Amino acid sequence: MAGNIQVVKDGYLVWVTLDHPGKFNAMSRAMWRALKGAFEGIQRESDARCVIIRGADGHFCAGGDIAEYPGFRFDAQQLEQFHEEDVWGGLQAMLDCDVPIVAQIDGNCMGAGVEIASCCDLRIASTLARFGAPIARLGFPMAPREAALVAQAVGNTTARAMLLAAEVFDAPHMLARDFLLKVLPQEQLKPYTLDLAQRVAALAPQAARLNKQAFRALNMPLDPVEYAQEAPELIAVNPAYAYANSAEHREGIAAFLDKRKPNF
Amino acid sequence: MAGNIQVVKDGYLVWVTLDHPGKFNAMSRAMWRALKGAFEGIQRESDARCVIIRGADGHFCAGGDIAEYPGFRFDAQQLEQFHEEDVWGGLQAMLDCDVPIVAQIDGNCMGAGVEIASCCDLRIASTLARFGAPIARLGFPMAPREAALVAQAVGNTTARAMLLAAEVFDAPHMLARDFLLKVLPQEQLKPYTLDLAQRVAALAPQAARLNKQAFRALNMPLDPVEYAQEAPELIAVNPAYAYANSAEHREGIAAFLDKRKPNF
Amino acid sequence: MAGNIQVVKDGYLVWVTLDHPGKFNAMSRAMWRALKGAFEGIQRESDARCVIIRGADGHFCAGGDIAEYPGFRFDAQQLEQFHEEDVWGGLQAMLDCDVPIVAQIDGNCMGAGVEIASCCDLRIASTLARFGAPIARLGFPMAPREAALVAQAVGNTTARAMLLAAEVFDAPHMLARDFLLKVLPQEQLKPYTLDLAQRVAALAPQAARLNKQAFRALNMPLDPVEYAQEAPELIAVNPAYAYANSAEHREGIAAFLDKRKPNF
Repeated sequence: MAGNIQVVKDGYLVWVTLDHPGKFNAMSRAMWRALKGAFEGIQRESDARCVIIRGADGHFCAGGDIAEYPGFRFDAQQLEQFHEEDVWGGLQAMLDCDVPIVAQIDGNCMGAGVEIASCCDLRIASTLARFGAPIARLGFPMAPREAALVAQAVGNTTARAMLLAAEVFDAPHMLARDFLLKVLPQEQLKPYTLDLAQRVAALAPQAARLNKQAFRALNMPLDPVEYAQEAPELIAVNPAYAYANSAEHREGIAAFLDKRKPNF
Repeated sequence: MAGNIQVVKDGYLVWVTLDHPGKFNAMSRAMWRALKGAFEGIQRESDARCVIIRGADGHFCAGGDIAEYPGFRFDAQQLEQFHEEDVWGGLQAMLDCDVPIVAQIDGNCMGAGVEIASCCDLRIASTLARFGAPIARLGFPMAPREAALVAQAVGNTTARAMLLAAEVFDAPHMLARDFLLKVLPQEQLKPYTLDLAQRVAALAPQAARLNKQAFRALNMPLDPVEYAQEAPELIAVNPAYAYANSAEHREGIAAFLDKRKPNF
Repeated sequence: MAGNIQVVKDGYLVWVTLDHPGKFNAMSRAMWRALKGAFEGIQRESDARCVIIRGADGHFCAGGDIAEYPGFRFDAQQLEQFHEEDVWGGLQAMLDCDVPIVAQIDGNCMGAGVEIASCCDLRIASTLARFGAPIARLGFPMAPREAALVAQAVGNTTARAMLLAAEVFDAPHMLARDFLLKVLPQEQLKPYTLDLAQRVAALAPQAARLNKQAFRALNMPLDPVEYAQEAPELIAVNPAYAYANSAEHREGIAAFLDKRKPNF
């Protein structure tokens, strides 16, 4: 068993669970590929309104599946393929997903866990969650695009402390760094996250998708090869105002002016 | 009455007041155009040294004037004109202003209020101030450039929580996010802001303008279409060291070495 | 005496000390040039694993050596040469250094001190440290690239407060702003910094250098003239995965799988 990614749709919500028993949900190559498929699928679900991503059994994700590493890490071409295709393929599918993503983080959130969480819009953690990327202990650096992603999400100082000093941080530190939106006692983690996801799902879904597209344009440095050329083009082709005459837009304004709750 | 923007010059200081009675100073189209005119005028005032922007009657600004929306929002071309000409015209005039701008924020600071505050250099708020942009309740997204502006000012997580979950935040949260420089009890808000503005106005004014130009170059991503090409050019044509022989520069150094207060 | 930069290598660690007696280690032109030489030298030391930079006698660095300023600041060409060659030469050498740099900050950390600290990876300060750049009192702005560097490191609001309002901040403020990793009582500053540097030095050194190269690519906006063109190229030519077959990489993975401590 190399672990798996469970996807369960429940009305407007989609639950994605990282599941690798006995390994704190460490990401195998198969799981990275499944993660890509999961989010490409969610992107095609026209009525998905909020994704919750979490780990099975009290941990988010402890990193990569180190047992697999001797099989491919010592050859530069295979290593590049692993990082740029498997890992970045999964992360890119999350970043490209127009549906809001909430991370529900408990226990270990290390290495690949921090990277996956960095692709989410809103991150909620239990007081027991721990964050880091102590891969310098394993003799290797974070791949450049992954380091860019993490540094942008956790802040420059915390990213350097994680990678250069193998520091591990608790949830209050990550809250102060704006990585987490909220830190809660473990028993409140799931109900709070569900409530937040339901609030997201009750809002105008087309607006959420357009907002996510706007935020994504800001994050183009994550894909630096294409930054200079594509950022302007991306903005230019985005039909930012095509939603004008949509039912959702009309309903929102009308409901406000009628002093009633909108029906999205 | 569609509200108005009051501008009062008092020596080196300029007071700008958002004023829309009965609507918590919500921005009408006329007010956006007046905001543009106000800051273009301030930019031409050679002896203006600090701007204080605030709202009338205990609130900063509650957002846009929703009563006007049915008149133009449901047509894509008119909607684009509203956002790119009226709204961005006002915000751009603030961003292009070389005079330091201090925001004095009380009560509601929502939607357009957050956008206007995001164009200021230093933001001071009362403990009663509230911040958000719950427009997904109204069925529409934030325009891309406005979302870029706000995300840069309030941070990525808070911007996403405001837009994707319609979260409203209090002043301590916005202080922790580095959006606010200081949070004070309501009765201290105005005297503290005035004192800060006077301290800004007592410093070398040419230096302030050059510092603002340098900061502006850093914020070019806000204008993404022109980023790749213009950022280098902007820096290149900026005569960064032309101030060398100015009276202000000579006075500052001389006063320090003479152990006296400079006279700017 | 125009001050000096002391460099002492002790095994894997390199101690760099800013030393200008009687001037709280204010940076003279000679010291900026020596700083450049110091870090170019460290970059060539193949077995350097961590740099600690600090000031002599209870202060980090109080700024520039103002006594020298009348000799060159009032001529635009000489002023540009000072900022772009002497100052930026020293800062660029620090930014270009692949070895992790820890700043040990006590007492005054002002102007040039903030700039030098902004080039470090991890910053530890005593509770007595004070941070600012009140050069508007001296009648001049921060040079654009230096302002970009500082704004990125201390955050937009704090940078504007330092430069536009001459505000001085204490260590807890700078900790909350993510500029500092840790604030400690003065007597714990040196032992904690040494312990941190030793932890950095015990980790895989090639991985640290590759991580620093990845972080550097993210900071290209600091060099805006070359940003649009060079960022993609930099990433493209960086042989990100050439470390695959290195002894360090093999040792790290092998030690983990053997459940023993790696020997880097």
